[in-house]
Amino acid sequence: MAFLDDDTYLLTSEAARRIYKQIKDLPILDAHNHADVREIAENNHYTDIWQVEAATDHYVWELMRKRGVPERLITGDATNKEKWMALAGIFEDLGGNPTYEWIHLDLKRRFGINDLINPTNAEEIWIKTKEMLEKDSMRPRAVLREMNVEVMCSTDDPIDPLEHHEAMQDVEGMPAILPTWRPDKAMNIFKEDYPHYITKLSKRVQKEISTVDDLVDALQVTHDYFEDHGTKATDHGVRVPFGYEVSRDLANAVFEKRMAGKVLEPGESRDFMSYMMHRFGEMNARSGWVMQIHIGAVRDYRDMLFNNLGTDTGGDISDHLVEIVSPLKDFLNAFDGKLKVVLYCLDPGHYPSLATIARAFGKNVNLGAAWWYNDSPVGMQRQLEYISSVDLLMNFAGMVTDSRKLMSYGSRTEMFRRVLSDVLGKMISKGMLPEHVATKIAIHACHAGPKELFGF
Amino acid sequence: MAFLDDDTYLLTSEAARRIYKQIKDLPILDAHNHADVREIAENNHYTDIWQVEAATDHYVWELMRKRGVPERLITGDATNKEKWMALAGIFEDLGGNPTYEWIHLDLKRRFGINDLINPTNAEEIWIKTKEMLEKDSMRPRAVLREMNVEVMCSTDDPIDPLEHHEAMQDVEGMPAILPTWRPDKAMNIFKEDYPHYITKLSKRVQKEISTVDDLVDALQVTHDYFEDHGTKATDHGVRVPFGYEVSRDLANAVFEKRMAGKVLEPGESRDFMSYMMHRFGEMNARSGWVMQIHIGAVRDYRDMLFNNLGTDTGGDISDHLVEIVSPLKDFLNAFDGKLKVVLYCLDPGHYPSLATIARAFGKNVNLGAAWWYNDSPVGMQRQLEYISSVDLLMNFAGMVTDSRKLMSYGSRTEMFRRVLSDVLGKMISKGMLPEHVATKIAIHACHAGPKELFGF
Amino acid sequence: MAFLDDDTYLLTSEAARRIYKQIKDLPILDAHNHADVREIAENNHYTDIWQVEAATDHYVWELMRKRGVPERLITGDATNKEKWMALAGIFEDLGGNPTYEWIHLDLKRRFGINDLINPTNAEEIWIKTKEMLEKDSMRPRAVLREMNVEVMCSTDDPIDPLEHHEAMQDVEGMPAILPTWRPDKAMNIFKEDYPHYITKLSKRVQKEISTVDDLVDALQVTHDYFEDHGTKATDHGVRVPFGYEVSRDLANAVFEKRMAGKVLEPGESRDFMSYMMHRFGEMNARSGWVMQIHIGAVRDYRDMLFNNLGTDTGGDISDHLVEIVSPLKDFLNAFDGKLKVVLYCLDPGHYPSLATIARAFGKNVNLGAAWWYNDSPVGMQRQLEYISSVDLLMNFAGMVTDSRKLMSYGSRTEMFRRVLSDVLGKMISKGMLPEHVATKIAIHACHAGPKELFGF
Repeated sequence: MAFLDDDTYLLTSEAARRIYKQIKDLPILDAHNHADVREIAENNHYTDIWQVEAATDHYVWELMRKRGVPERLITGDATNKEKWMALAGIFEDLGGNPTYEWIHLDLKRRFGINDLINPTNAEEIWIKTKEMLEKDSMRPRAVLREMNVEVMCSTDDPIDPLEHHEAMQDVEGMPAILPTWRPDKAMNIFKEDYPHYITKLSKRVQKEISTVDDLVDALQVTHDYFEDHGTKATDHGVRVPFGYEVSRDLANAVFEKRMAGKVLEPGESRDFMSYMMHRFGEMNARSGWVMQIHIGAVRDYRDMLFNNLGTDTGGDISDHLVEIVSPLKDFLNAFDGKLKVVLYCLDPGHYPSLATIARAFGKNVNLGAAWWYNDSPVGMQRQLEYISSVDLLMNFAGMVTDSRKLMSYGSRTEMFRRVLSDVLGKMISKGMLPEHVATKIAIHACHAGPKELFGF
Repeated sequence: MAFLDDDTYLLTSEAARRIYKQIKDLPILDAHNHADVREIAENNHYTDIWQVEAATDHYVWELMRKRGVPERLITGDATNKEKWMALAGIFEDLGGNPTYEWIHLDLKRRFGINDLINPTNAEEIWIKTKEMLEKDSMRPRAVLREMNVEVMCSTDDPIDPLEHHEAMQDVEGMPAILPTWRPDKAMNIFKEDYPHYITKLSKRVQKEISTVDDLVDALQVTHDYFEDHGTKATDHGVRVPFGYEVSRDLANAVFEKRMAGKVLEPGESRDFMSYMMHRFGEMNARSGWVMQIHIGAVRDYRDMLFNNLGTDTGGDISDHLVEIVSPLKDFLNAFDGKLKVVLYCLDPGHYPSLATIARAFGKNVNLGAAWWYNDSPVGMQRQLEYISSVDLLMNFAGMVTDSRKLMSYGSRTEMFRRVLSDVLGKMISKGMLPEHVATKIAIHACHAGPKELFGF
Repeated sequence: MAFLDDDTYLLTSEAARRIYKQIKDLPILDAHNHADVREIAENNHYTDIWQVEAATDHYVWELMRKRGVPERLITGDATNKEKWMALAGIFEDLGGNPTYEWIHLDLKRRFGINDLINPTNAEEIWIKTKEMLEKDSMRPRAVLREMNVEVMCSTDDPIDPLEHHEAMQDVEGMPAILPTWRPDKAMNIFKEDYPHYITKLSKRVQKEISTVDDLVDALQVTHDYFEDHGTKATDHGVRVPFGYEVSRDLANAVFEKRMAGKVLEPGESRDFMSYMMHRFGEMNARSGWVMQIHIGAVRDYRDMLFNNLGTDTGGDISDHLVEIVSPLKDFLNAFDGKLKVVLYCLDPGHYPSLATIARAFGKNVNLGAAWWYNDSPVGMQRQLEYISSVDLLMNFAGMVTDSRKLMSYGSRTEMFRRVLSDVLGKMISKGMLPEHVATKIAIHACHAGPKELFGF
């Protein structure tokens, strides 16, 4: 019953505990995260616990705001220590949210600290962790090794030179650190700085881009470049997964209109984005890459954050009304049998649409891990139970950390593996599944499954 | 295991029972109900169990209809005793619905009767309760005191003279009975009797209302009047929470068109309602009131009930397709940092949209209690688990009874507190939360939290 | 804890086990399935386990495809034995999906085989079951008797001559095998082969069909014919339950346009389908039949399956955005008090809309069993818990197998009864319901309830 107890945390049956023992030490395969690969390449010492646990993590920022912490102590000009003290001051208020568990798990597993964060011991934890971070065993590469990461996929813009990935390519004893090609900026034609991005892309590939064909060619150049660097997957963050069949001429007209500085109709953006998704599908089918589609995030909903701090700062939300079934149809059918697709959704109310699509499209289309707001014990449990009953757990695309902080890969993976074990343990207890079958499924879902799917 | 057992009802772990002990006797703060304040001011004896438990409660009516009881014995001209006997005749059929628990809890807690209602003992219960209702300890004020109600907020039209609230203002030993300003009738410009309502409002404030500015001024007069009577919040019942940024001139044109007796386009109603919501936001920001928005009820869906019995008689439903994210955006951003908002939704499928909005908008925007069809053990449990994982339980806006019958405030509150304890108890058992943190959160969510939020 | 253990499978409390004992032997009333009645009429021996368990079941096909089995070994020209060996080869991979439980339950209950299917024993099971299928006790009629089926309703096109139903009408010791009138083909005016179907209908009734009135008259003839054959219900499979009030002239114009070979606008199809639903409502109200509406299936979403194998082969999905509340309103109000309606939905996110509609419309409108992708232990559990809290379990329309294979009626019914018992057992354990009330509800929901509703 004790908080984060090794034997019982999230494991409510003996069967769950037995399964967890079989999977807890499997290497981590993380097909999607937001690692800063430079951090690993440089391998500098971390300075303090705030840097490690909160400085890059808008999950933490949002919760601090909810408890009334002033922005100065979150993303402002306060010192890291002041920020840590502010976080510790409200840390108990986060109880029940997975962030409360993740950070305590990090403390426990990475720092060996079993204390419960609170205002009284905040300073002591600050000091202890600061001391520990001076050790070489707490530098980025050592931490990755310690967490037994076998493969990790960062998320990268097509124009990224990938010099840090290159630097890590031949370092012995390190996980494979693979770039993921995420061409959102080349697709989001409705954005204000779109032409500016096209200019940057043009420079990157050293070719003029004046038609949609030029654009596709330029992107193919970067796609090839990523392939040379070991990429196995692309990633696409879309509010609506537009994938209608659209002609080249229509898409080109929209592209030229936009590049001429004109404002587009929503239908024009939809057409252009659909066209590009088909081209990405072709590139990926040729390369044998997996196409990951993250569906339904409404970005930058809160103006105050977007205007003051920019994107990815805590102003993104979910929308139950996002269209999925109709926009995806042409795309999935066009690439049926030729392309592997992993679908993620933000609103748990979209699982039925996605799970039945995955079921209908056979082995190539599968559901990804519970994403973002669903990445919690209750969110993962419900997703796994639902996938299991509609689709197959054996086809689950695997846990991804989606994390912006390296230190928490282990904790996020641990939470998932415990929940998976518990879901299966409950099925065993209810007589729905023999234990040896459940164990086989658990091992597969944690390692062999994603390994085979992504070709790691 | 026994039905409604003090120690085990809805409490499935020792930890849950320990937490419940810490919160069960906290005073009740009820920020939203449908109390008839005249009933309390007059403080007459209740006549019988039907009056107390069913005469004002369309929840009960609907369930009787589902079991085939004729309307005459529900809302018709039968005697209260006949109606009670009809209800008792099908009462066992309600098993599994929270109404079955609430009414039995009321019997147990308020009347000391532990019998299970059925046709055999219906008459006996009728007689016993009738006798007890003759005691002074069963008159409205005594019951409120017995239930330990500290603050209760009724729901009132802006033109209400609030004479009963005034009458109760200085009565010693009584809860604060605060009016809530609910201007739906001034906003629902699409309704047939809208001009008629404007005439009544005009009379109430003794000023002509010919423009939208007049309307806003008139409403401000009532807003001030409510403020003098201790109001801390407004309430808004909307199918779609229209809050688009709309110009005064556009809104005025719609208002004048409607007052001229013309029929509006849906887009015109949307514009007018959006404009008014912004004005309400301004009034509330100035007064420091909390704005409660109840989203998604489709009113009067069943013609037979609406035509024969009018509104609020059991013909309201939920619609999964209600728009929320887009219509709320302008409003929430316009008042970001200036206004406290509590969001309620009818369809549990809308929690992800609302919870992520609440998470993004920080401390001022929070989720309210599980509303109406969600106000059940399973509905509350799922809501609390979801809030907890996406947002924070510490930011929960507090239980509200939403009740149309005074006798059941205690039972509804008790059911909530037991479910909250159980949700937290389960987290403790799973090692997700230390018990002292859970207990702190439970106490906060039941008392200090809503007290601080509403400024009670 | 053992897999499919008689005492504990899906039954997690003593109370659940006690309730299950009370309902497990009740006769089966199955108001909706896809039985091939000819199979029963002919009463031939089944040839092998593949024929019995998989040859007609696209649930199995989809899961085999998900595990990468080639189509040849699923629906192709391989032998039944090859197909069975392919299925057995991936059978463990299906763990967690209800199909894993159903087929093992069938083996256990019908064949007395307790083995877990796997590649090693696949051949042995093939041989054992082949031998057993040669016994008379394993022929269709004997199996139906053995499963204690009292009434079963097949799903039939209006033009079906029902000769097999006739053949079974006076066979002693057999369940009542009642046809269900499902006029989807007469309503789906947007389909390519619609005029062809109208020609077939015209031939069947020996009357020309040139107006919508002719069409309605022709359908009425078949409705009468079905009534003579004992029909108690119709069934309607609709993506959107269009039921708007539409004039005869408008509907006729659309019908004539379509019969003239022209292409329709979506709004025209909607109008025509709405008009027809009202006519079906009238026919059913006159006959006292129950109208079953299956809402939300998006048919033939995967082109490869539709183009190669046709409809009902595994390419159907669910869509969270299906409209329900608005299109159903006119229809439900037009027939309020005159017609019994049972609503089924494919997306669990539509339960709140349906359950609140059922609650509002009283005794005549009720929720049907968890359909298709929801027909699993977790799907049924959540549906029953939700119905129970919003509507009433006493008004549940009863379990239906929806099955395409006769051998599994028992297993599907058993799974439902265990889940129902467990849901009620949990309520008893939590003190929400006295056991004798729960038991009464369970018995009613399994037998007396549907019997009374459908007039069996």
